[in-house]
Amino acid sequence: MESYNSEQRIAELEELLRAKDIPNLKDSLRRTNPVDIEEFMSDLDNEQSLIVFRLLRKDDAAEVFAELKNEGKHRLLTSITDPEIDSIVNALNFDDVIDTLEEMPATVVKRMLKNSDAETRKKVNEFLQFPEDSAGSLMTTEFVEVKPEMTCKEVLDRIKKVGSTKVTIYTCYVTSKRKSLLGYVSLRLIVTSDSDTKVKDLMYEDVISVEAYEDQEEVAKTFMRYGFTALPVVDSERRLIGIITVDDIMDVMELEATEDFQRMAAITPDEEEYSTTSAFKLAKNRLPWLMFLMISASFTSTILKSSQQVIESIIALNMFIPMLTDSGGNAGSQSSTLVIRGMATGDVELKDWYKVVFKELQIGLMIGLVMAIVAFGKCMLFDKVGSEVSLIVALTIFIIIVIAKVVGALLPMGAKKIGFDPAIMASPLITTIVDSIGLLCYFEVAKIIMGI
Amino acid sequence: MESYNSEQRIAELEELLRAKDIPNLKDSLRRTNPVDIEEFMSDLDNEQSLIVFRLLRKDDAAEVFAELKNEGKHRLLTSITDPEIDSIVNALNFDDVIDTLEEMPATVVKRMLKNSDAETRKKVNEFLQFPEDSAGSLMTTEFVEVKPEMTCKEVLDRIKKVGSTKVTIYTCYVTSKRKSLLGYVSLRLIVTSDSDTKVKDLMYEDVISVEAYEDQEEVAKTFMRYGFTALPVVDSERRLIGIITVDDIMDVMELEATEDFQRMAAITPDEEEYSTTSAFKLAKNRLPWLMFLMISASFTSTILKSSQQVIESIIALNMFIPMLTDSGGNAGSQSSTLVIRGMATGDVELKDWYKVVFKELQIGLMIGLVMAIVAFGKCMLFDKVGSEVSLIVALTIFIIIVIAKVVGALLPMGAKKIGFDPAIMASPLITTIVDSIGLLCYFEVAKIIMGI
Repeated sequence: MESYNSEQRIAELEELLRAKDIPNLKDSLRRTNPVDIEEFMSDLDNEQSLIVFRLLRKDDAAEVFAELKNEGKHRLLTSITDPEIDSIVNALNFDDVIDTLEEMPATVVKRMLKNSDAETRKKVNEFLQFPEDSAGSLMTTEFVEVKPEMTCKEVLDRIKKVGSTKVTIYTCYVTSKRKSLLGYVSLRLIVTSDSDTKVKDLMYEDVISVEAYEDQEEVAKTFMRYGFTALPVVDSERRLIGIITVDDIMDVMELEATEDFQRMAAITPDEEEYSTTSAFKLAKNRLPWLMFLMISASFTSTILKSSQQVIESIIALNMFIPMLTDSGGNAGSQSSTLVIRGMATGDVELKDWYKVVFKELQIGLMIGLVMAIVAFGKCMLFDKVGSEVSLIVALTIFIIIVIAKVVGALLPMGAKKIGFDPAIMASPLITTIVDSIGLLCYFEVAKIIMGI
Repeated sequence: MESYNSEQRIAELEELLRAKDIPNLKDSLRRTNPVDIEEFMSDLDNEQSLIVFRLLRKDDAAEVFAELKNEGKHRLLTSITDPEIDSIVNALNFDDVIDTLEEMPATVVKRMLKNSDAETRKKVNEFLQFPEDSAGSLMTTEFVEVKPEMTCKEVLDRIKKVGSTKVTIYTCYVTSKRKSLLGYVSLRLIVTSDSDTKVKDLMYEDVISVEAYEDQEEVAKTFMRYGFTALPVVDSERRLIGIITVDDIMDVMELEATEDFQRMAAITPDEEEYSTTSAFKLAKNRLPWLMFLMISASFTSTILKSSQQVIESIIALNMFIPMLTDSGGNAGSQSSTLVIRGMATGDVELKDWYKVVFKELQIGLMIGLVMAIVAFGKCMLFDKVGSEVSLIVALTIFIIIVIAKVVGALLPMGAKKIGFDPAIMASPLITTIVDSIGLLCYFEVAKIIMGI
């Protein structure tokens, strides 16, 4: 047996489609993972992708559909017939139906729900009430629920009956008559225990759960902290209303990290992927912060204007300004990035702020000293600007690095304290702030040393 | 039943330990998740943490041990007796044993392996051969292996016998007599099928696997792409040698994102967490890049020195230098960050470089135009520097933004093309490069407009 290689598979599918070899294409599609079929389809035009989609088995079609990006889903739903839509909707997991409904325009939603019964509509409406980034919007109701009095054999029989329609059967949730979550039991325990052992003797009672309105970022943190593969979702009265599985959470983790990267580069976060977002929208996401930072950076103009006299008397000072401000910005963004990331992963806690400041102070003193010595040497030997200017540059570098390190660590923590996203305080904003502080220090040091 | 709250649990444990209420502490520990016990223990001194550790049940002790950071593991292994070490090593999953052995000094390793038999030593040595960041170092050998001719009942019996010692039983791997990986079958299918159905009639043959020497970042990408909970690891002859489970991969995902954040802030990546790393080591990780960037930034000094004549004749130009360089750096780092992240998640591919450049060019033109207009207005109305200087500033802003966007997108792709990590091309380096280009443009534009 040959090994599975997604690039080869996709190339093979492309070749078969080009040759219009439908029987072999159909066969090859059956052996290809839905994720790879999605990638294959994403490069096809409307008509071709419809041909491919109609060659898929019903279950595969639903899985491929769930993998499609919003644009692809929309394109497909407007091209296929109503019976085909019904068939997909029925084969999809409930959480994938909800995901799709949330993103499609009203006319498409109407077509999707055309033939569904009153109960489904009611359930859908309940789900659509959860905010988009909440635990509720990620969960599915397709889990296995058992009662404390059931035996292992009864649980296995139940799974045999309903198991194929459930998202996961590997963790069974134990509920009371009133639907309260009592505990959970793994299929591993059920399978390895005697068949007449009762669920209540096997179940873990200290079950970790999340509430439906909890933010998905917190849910992802809980998954990571405990290494779970599924997590129950409860309502405010601790009744079990759904479960979240780890595959959905991996997407959330990726999305949240991407959002942090975007914020740290001064971009308004956007869940759309780069490749499918229009240049206009990308420009719109980037412009506000860039504008804000440009306007804030013009504070430095004011500082430079008021220091005109110093610059004019020692024109050599001028040429070191970019180097000083850049070094300050870089030193500050090193600290802010580590603190922001530490807070995101839960390694750095707000209550430890004084430890962080003390550590950054130490780091700043060490790095500042080395940088100052090198800068002094460079100014003297290469730029040949004389010992006074070299001393001013070296001293300023030292002061800027120490301040940048401490400010860079404090700002994200301050932002979090007052309820902002710490990632917003990353490099670009730090740069702007440290620029101003750095320039002020530069001219003050110059005045003192030159005796102006 | 009350809900599980980790902070409350930890506070309760602290209270009980302070009151020396050992019986209740022991009881409370049993109801607490090992992850939270680790957090509780991390703040205790040597003696107290030993007391707590000895109160744990054997299985819990192994799980808590696996959660400990390297420092904590080391501390514990040097405090406890040899029989206690043996008991932990026996209760640990094999991949956790390997993880620990990889990180501990030779004397501790010796104690850990003291009583293990020749076969275990051999297996350990085989595992320690895999590079630290490879699939091999993440995998475990504790999976369920079945043969194609077995029936569902036989598989269930086998799981009942060996299941409790396996990391996962939810996916069973089908191998030939010669250990070749033939396919896999989910426990779900085994449980929901007739008991005399044969494995070969249920198994998926198109199994996606990774090779033992593959980099963990690639393994994480495969997990995310397909949403798996476990992935088989094969050797160069496609023999099944282990599996990797999703909980280990979540750690890798977090680590890899953190490494990218670090590289993008010009820090030498380090797997240690911020809170447990010494100030000296943190300084050491940050200094080289900071120094390199400071030296590169002094190119700007050279440019400024050679443009002395222009600055002296229009001293007003001087005050806009930081704003211009900052804006260029910010615009460039927006592009580079999106491209770096896109490549990390697989959204942006190297072969699409011309699409990316075209998109960034469009974005640069749009943003550049708006920024130039605002900058012109600001210079005229607030800074009152006259229309000539305002025009120079506005034109330069436009040119800088367009160049920064394109260069910011191209550099990470270029880095990847020649085999470097694209994250290295992030904001600080972009800033330095765009600074130089920006200043050159500034003075060229000034010369043309002022007719110098």
